Amino acid sequence: MRDEEKFMRAAIASATEGIKRGQSPFGACIVRDGKIIASAHNCVWQDTDITAHAEIVAIRLACKYLGTVDLTGSVIYSTCEPCPMCFSACHWVRISKIVFGARIEDAQKAGFNELKISNEQMKQISNIGIEIVGDFLRDECVELFRIWSARQDAKAY
Amino acid sequence: MRDEEKFMRAAIASATEGIKRGQSPFGACIVRDGKIIASAHNCVWQDTDITAHAEIVAIRLACKYLGTVDLTGSVIYSTCEPCPMCFSACHWVRISKIVFGARIEDAQKAGFNELKISNEQMKQISNIGIEIVGDFLRDECVELFRIWSARQDAKAY
Repeated sequence: MRDEEKFMRAAIASATEGIKRGQSPFGACIVRDGKIIASAHNCVWQDTDITAHAEIVAIRLACKYLGTVDLTGSVIYSTCEPCPMCFSACHWVRISKIVFGARIEDAQKAGFNELKISNEQMKQISNIGIEIVGDFLRDECVELFRIWSARQDAKAY
Repeated sequence: MRDEEKFMRAAIASATEGIKRGQSPFGACIVRDGKIIASAHNCVWQDTDITAHAEIVAIRLACKYLGTVDLTGSVIYSTCEPCPMCFSACHWVRISKIVFGARIEDAQKAGFNELKISNEQMKQISNIGIEIVGDFLRDECVELFRIWSARQDAKAY
């Protein structure tokens, strides 16, 4: 398996674990120097914290683990295109590349109250250099929404 | 003193407290039904958490305090225009109105690595109804950057 697939599958595994725990179907992992330094699922319901998106939780874990708020050179793999909150957090922590699977529109279709601004739009408007790769293992990532929505406890926000 | 001034001064007091503790010069408070339910300063350095902007910290506190991730009807007072991360967090938690003092450009001049997207731009692109009031007690809020930058430990991110 290519490294990039391995990393996205780690994010998918985190999302799957989250779904089992009654959380929303999103996962993210952060890779630095070829190693996963943090992987997390969305914890909004578990923590009663609307900011606990998978990317934000992973960024917090990575900062704590490395003792820094500068993750220059790191890559984030997210099962879904980061919302503008998470995209901006990636900017603040100086992540160099975002790789995502499903799109914001997929999350919206699943019932999430998304701000309809794509990562490419955020990048263009703010004129920053972050690299963005979308639709990576898209089908497996979109499937997470289907698995989640089949559960009795599925609840969007 | 008008209520709105009282609330912004609570945010300013939080920012001032943060500056004294070696934190970045930002404060925010959240008001619901005419009462302050959370007030916080930026805790990025203290917590080694790049996401710990004043608004995010205040939103987390408010969610925990009220046991909900829905703050419909609430107003956030922020000493500086929320960055796109914080603006988006306000959207997710369904805050109804943002009142801010200084502008993103002021934070940028102070050395912060801001994404140059204003709240009005975020609102227009995503077509949401959140109310935005800027330049409120602007001089007092801009003054926070001056007080902070005079300190030996002033460090932007």
